[in-house]
Amino acid sequence: MSVRPGRHFLQIPGPTNVPDPVLRAMAAPTIDHRGPEFAELTHRLLDALKPVFGTSGPVLIYPSSGTGAWEAALLNTLSPGDRVLCFETGHFSTLWQSMAEQLGLDPETVPGDWRHGASPEEAAARLAADTEHRIKAVCVVHNETSTGVTSRIPEIRRALDEAGHPALLLVDTVSSLGSIDYRHEEWGVDVTVAGSQKGLMLPPGLGFNAVSDKALEASRTARSPRAYWDWRPVLEANERGFFPYTPATNLLYGLEEALRLLTAEGLPAVFARHQKLAAATRAAVRGWGLEVVCADEREHSATLTGVLLPPEHDADAVRKVVLERFDMSLGTGLGKLAGRVFRIGHLGQLGELALAGTLSGVQMGLRLAGVPVASGGLEAALDVLGER
Amino acid sequence: MSVRPGRHFLQIPGPTNVPDPVLRAMAAPTIDHRGPEFAELTHRLLDALKPVFGTSGPVLIYPSSGTGAWEAALLNTLSPGDRVLCFETGHFSTLWQSMAEQLGLDPETVPGDWRHGASPEEAAARLAADTEHRIKAVCVVHNETSTGVTSRIPEIRRALDEAGHPALLLVDTVSSLGSIDYRHEEWGVDVTVAGSQKGLMLPPGLGFNAVSDKALEASRTARSPRAYWDWRPVLEANERGFFPYTPATNLLYGLEEALRLLTAEGLPAVFARHQKLAAATRAAVRGWGLEVVCADEREHSATLTGVLLPPEHDADAVRKVVLERFDMSLGTGLGKLAGRVFRIGHLGQLGELALAGTLSGVQMGLRLAGVPVASGGLEAALDVLGER
Amino acid sequence: MSVRPGRHFLQIPGPTNVPDPVLRAMAAPTIDHRGPEFAELTHRLLDALKPVFGTSGPVLIYPSSGTGAWEAALLNTLSPGDRVLCFETGHFSTLWQSMAEQLGLDPETVPGDWRHGASPEEAAARLAADTEHRIKAVCVVHNETSTGVTSRIPEIRRALDEAGHPALLLVDTVSSLGSIDYRHEEWGVDVTVAGSQKGLMLPPGLGFNAVSDKALEASRTARSPRAYWDWRPVLEANERGFFPYTPATNLLYGLEEALRLLTAEGLPAVFARHQKLAAATRAAVRGWGLEVVCADEREHSATLTGVLLPPEHDADAVRKVVLERFDMSLGTGLGKLAGRVFRIGHLGQLGELALAGTLSGVQMGLRLAGVPVASGGLEAALDVLGER
Amino acid sequence: MSVRPGRHFLQIPGPTNVPDPVLRAMAAPTIDHRGPEFAELTHRLLDALKPVFGTSGPVLIYPSSGTGAWEAALLNTLSPGDRVLCFETGHFSTLWQSMAEQLGLDPETVPGDWRHGASPEEAAARLAADTEHRIKAVCVVHNETSTGVTSRIPEIRRALDEAGHPALLLVDTVSSLGSIDYRHEEWGVDVTVAGSQKGLMLPPGLGFNAVSDKALEASRTARSPRAYWDWRPVLEANERGFFPYTPATNLLYGLEEALRLLTAEGLPAVFARHQKLAAATRAAVRGWGLEVVCADEREHSATLTGVLLPPEHDADAVRKVVLERFDMSLGTGLGKLAGRVFRIGHLGQLGELALAGTLSGVQMGLRLAGVPVASGGLEAALDVLGER
Repeated sequence: MSVRPGRHFLQIPGPTNVPDPVLRAMAAPTIDHRGPEFAELTHRLLDALKPVFGTSGPVLIYPSSGTGAWEAALLNTLSPGDRVLCFETGHFSTLWQSMAEQLGLDPETVPGDWRHGASPEEAAARLAADTEHRIKAVCVVHNETSTGVTSRIPEIRRALDEAGHPALLLVDTVSSLGSIDYRHEEWGVDVTVAGSQKGLMLPPGLGFNAVSDKALEASRTARSPRAYWDWRPVLEANERGFFPYTPATNLLYGLEEALRLLTAEGLPAVFARHQKLAAATRAAVRGWGLEVVCADEREHSATLTGVLLPPEHDADAVRKVVLERFDMSLGTGLGKLAGRVFRIGHLGQLGELALAGTLSGVQMGLRLAGVPVASGGLEAALDVLGER
Repeated sequence: MSVRPGRHFLQIPGPTNVPDPVLRAMAAPTIDHRGPEFAELTHRLLDALKPVFGTSGPVLIYPSSGTGAWEAALLNTLSPGDRVLCFETGHFSTLWQSMAEQLGLDPETVPGDWRHGASPEEAAARLAADTEHRIKAVCVVHNETSTGVTSRIPEIRRALDEAGHPALLLVDTVSSLGSIDYRHEEWGVDVTVAGSQKGLMLPPGLGFNAVSDKALEASRTARSPRAYWDWRPVLEANERGFFPYTPATNLLYGLEEALRLLTAEGLPAVFARHQKLAAATRAAVRGWGLEVVCADEREHSATLTGVLLPPEHDADAVRKVVLERFDMSLGTGLGKLAGRVFRIGHLGQLGELALAGTLSGVQMGLRLAGVPVASGGLEAALDVLGER
Repeated sequence: MSVRPGRHFLQIPGPTNVPDPVLRAMAAPTIDHRGPEFAELTHRLLDALKPVFGTSGPVLIYPSSGTGAWEAALLNTLSPGDRVLCFETGHFSTLWQSMAEQLGLDPETVPGDWRHGASPEEAAARLAADTEHRIKAVCVVHNETSTGVTSRIPEIRRALDEAGHPALLLVDTVSSLGSIDYRHEEWGVDVTVAGSQKGLMLPPGLGFNAVSDKALEASRTARSPRAYWDWRPVLEANERGFFPYTPATNLLYGLEEALRLLTAEGLPAVFARHQKLAAATRAAVRGWGLEVVCADEREHSATLTGVLLPPEHDADAVRKVVLERFDMSLGTGLGKLAGRVFRIGHLGQLGELALAGTLSGVQMGLRLAGVPVASGGLEAALDVLGER
Repeated sequence: MSVRPGRHFLQIPGPTNVPDPVLRAMAAPTIDHRGPEFAELTHRLLDALKPVFGTSGPVLIYPSSGTGAWEAALLNTLSPGDRVLCFETGHFSTLWQSMAEQLGLDPETVPGDWRHGASPEEAAARLAADTEHRIKAVCVVHNETSTGVTSRIPEIRRALDEAGHPALLLVDTVSSLGSIDYRHEEWGVDVTVAGSQKGLMLPPGLGFNAVSDKALEASRTARSPRAYWDWRPVLEANERGFFPYTPATNLLYGLEEALRLLTAEGLPAVFARHQKLAAATRAAVRGWGLEVVCADEREHSATLTGVLLPPEHDADAVRKVVLERFDMSLGTGLGKLAGRVFRIGHLGQLGELALAGTLSGVQMGLRLAGVPVASGGLEAALDVLGER
């Protein structure tokens, strides 16, 4: 690669720009994962994670990607052949469903158009129809990273409650946790799945499960074979500050620093900042005369924005010119949105000026790629970012 | 923790002392795992790993601990109910066998006394007896981290060959790879399991599988359910320089630097250095009048030494005084060796003087803990380290 | 300080944004400054610095700020009472002149309006008038950091040559070296003064003198008392790869990495990039309906732009709101420009998008501070940055 | 350089082994040296430095080596032609005296044999003889880095007091500050000179002056020309948290972390640790049958030990073999001790085991270089380090 004369703009919807103090924290020497200093670190981390998930219950940390945490959620709570209700909200919801199938579960799909979140009405209907309670779990992606659409989890919960249905609620928060308000306990979620590389502002390499009592109860009888992902030995070892196998020590150093940064800014301020950056981004997209993927005002993602191009234009050509001319990475369109959509990540460590630079690069890139864009997009964004 | 006035001596048998350049490499900003720069990194890494494993075939990298790589080896090659022949060489061989059981396999144990490696004679006998070829895989730990005993893999291979037995050979090299001569291909190993945090001189967080053609062939029909660990999507994505899910980018940066260091020193020099450090350590142990766990001269580990204390002494009391007085971590006795053994790690980034400091600390710690030690242990070690 | 949710925008005209690889290079362990590894480092650095200064002669490195390098230039070439001709181009030229006075020299000032560079015509006149050659040195600041005005050094040189005047030419390139085309040797400069923290993209802490043969000759008879700054022992020790006193080792590590980055981008590309960023900045300023400090089209600085506010507005109020709302540091007005001017640094490690973010912040800050700004400033800048 | 397989042992008497947290602190992004965050940093640093110098008065920080701080001490307090009384205790005392001469002062030497500290008796005699008070300052090196001999500053002070002599007392603590008990105020020192790269555990690049009221008073009338080193503008700018020229920001980050480490360990514990490491080193030297340079039991340095070889052996040959075989740097003999002496640095970040490794390397190196060494040196050192 040729040398680029400044910092890369990493504006994909994750991995996000890791804060310098987190990178430096990760560069500390690795310590004995069986020693007293490590045990203290573990206890501090497990405590500090709870408010981020909005739970008073346990949070498990895996040396894995978020995909691994999906697998842990399924294997610990379900048995071969169990039916799971999966909402198709985009590419990642589809992948999670495929995983369930590969692991011997029996997914039932609620189809979707990739421009809306999981439908609470459809959830209610499906659960009501399942009078025999064959559905053992409902899987929802809180924030679909492939589209920029957020599902309304409390309304899905309500559908379960109103149907009096005992299915577990499993929620993927990979691209929302630590960026969008999320409440594991208050919303009655049974397993929350997360990863390190988005709102938690770490490099990839850690997966998380926050688990409810009901999920723990289910894990005692679930018969899916499991070893690495098994919650029980992790929870037992965590009691004493340890892990059943060697944890990813230096990523844990980074996690402690990242949690410190989130706490210092304050979670409500973090959430408000993401909402503002997202609003400014949408203002720019509309100002350019383009369309946002998300079709429901209640469901706009605060962490990324999918931008739909007019049919005659290639979204990847825009991304290419933006990368080559301005050294900025944007997210590609995934699955059936390939070529038609690009995604702007605006989550994690990000301030107003970096977003303004990002949107400047998108505007210049659109023009260089021959996409007609109205003037005024960037100014509309600055009106949001610079409001009194 | 109180502040300690120097660098910690991390002399457990892994995680090892991560070299400064590796730590700094890991502190580089995370990049787009779908972009061209990342694809180049992946290709460079996958190439550079091959000589370290002694293979011309594929090596897979997981965001996981070494334990995860154990699981990947089993799930990709075996089907529920398959018999696996497991040699009990110590604590970790036992854990791997337990995992096989949890994952629905049918382990057959070759018992051991934890002071010898896997017996090629016993392997020959068991394989000869298995005329129906019910044994589908033989699992051996190359270097037992709990004891400091190395198994003679080529002789196990020979037992398979002489029996004309088709079982796969699965080998754990977690605490030997990159430190002790190892040859995946030449020795006819089917799956080599490794982790990042020992001879590869990285923090924990990466697991590896090197796989033979025969193992790949087996994976096409193996029926163990798998998703995260499935080789196929990894190998397919690797072709283009990518991974099926977000890889642990910053650990991969560290891996590139660690491989550069190993290559610059030269693998033969790395192996010779470990042999010398191990010989010096054994000279010290014997000079103190103590016993090494490993009971066979052919099987001494080059990466760690288990030290057996006289029965009336508590090995953990020695470790405690060494940690508190000299800020050095030693390995505890595991499983049935608890309390009777401590382990000195001498692998990874380690030179003669750091080992001399280590052995000085052990000698002082033994004395402070009231273990009678003959004088001359340290001098005997220096005779090895300082020979012309 | 409260936690800010992104990277700080350090857009003062130095210190500049230090590239991550330079920061990481500086974090390497300090080595023996009398050992063979250090000697090799010194030789590599002294070689690599020459093209950056445009010289084939020696460059000296001091553990000091740029101010120290001013002092070294004066003390090594001049004797108490010597007359020096100083051009008043702004705050820093004035400080250098004051230093000359404090050190016992006899400065003669060419006054200026702080909106123009050193006048070659005035230089010619003064030198012609000095028929007794009492002027021993001419001091010019190449790029006045307080105003954003660049002096035309080759024309000053021509004035000296045409007057047949033997005075030395001393030039301050603190905020131009490595960003604006500069040629010590070709332009006949005798001492070039520089610092580490601007175009060289290092933290502050190193001062530089590039010296001509004529300057070296002068140093043999100059009678200003000196020890720390004395060129002779430095040059002698440098021959063997060493320094007469302990050098700032870790900054030298950073220097090597910074020089590698400059070389990899290519100096002509570096200069062109700075010109483009500066042009975009001026387009923005003018688009906002504001005035640039520099009053001569031939003398616009490529590294910083001074922005003049209408008299009723306070430039520091703008800077304050920009810092508090957008976490961006801008340069204050210095000396007689205090309150009337703020300065935008656009040098060192800086790409188009970071500049766009910078100008977005300035535009929003101006509005928030109540300075009337025309719309179109930012778009005008993007027209420059995004041109085909 | 070939790759060395472990951490380098940097056992020269400075620069010392910089602690990892200090290196990482230095890798933080450079900030605006005129902004509010910087002002807070300055105030914290200037406060935290006082107890390390043992003063309630001001401490000045220069971007310079310790040599620069020598120059600052002389120029600020003295006028051309002033007589200064200099004690020849070794190479560095001689260099400081040469500097005084170069700067136009009139040094009077008290000769020494390089094996003793400054003689209080001789001080008394010289001061008594100076009835006209022509001596304006007494210059003493607290800990002679070239020999490992510490001068008894309180006794020199007493000599001044008993003679009723008004001369200033200037003390170089470059290799003692932060390692050996030192009390600027209690001992009546007027200027204490220090550098960053020894007991302060930083890389080189910062010089320090702690100044008494009397020194400040003297600086108001001292006529040595000065600009960079002038205390007045530094003290004035420091009031507001700033510096008169760009300070070495990233070294200041490291300074804050280093001061935090010293404070956390506790200065008395730091001093005791250095005494113990020094005692162990001397025990080793004597156990080998070799001689320590320092000839007075009251004056052994706690930070380094000079080792005198039998006349037929070359100390640099020992250093060479130690560097090449064991990757350890030792200090060379300087000035008239060249070839006869090598120096072991045991200061800064250093624990018992690193010292044991150091002494192991020296012992092996002596043998490899053919110097006859008795057995028992290392064991004698461990008796000191491992005592109950």
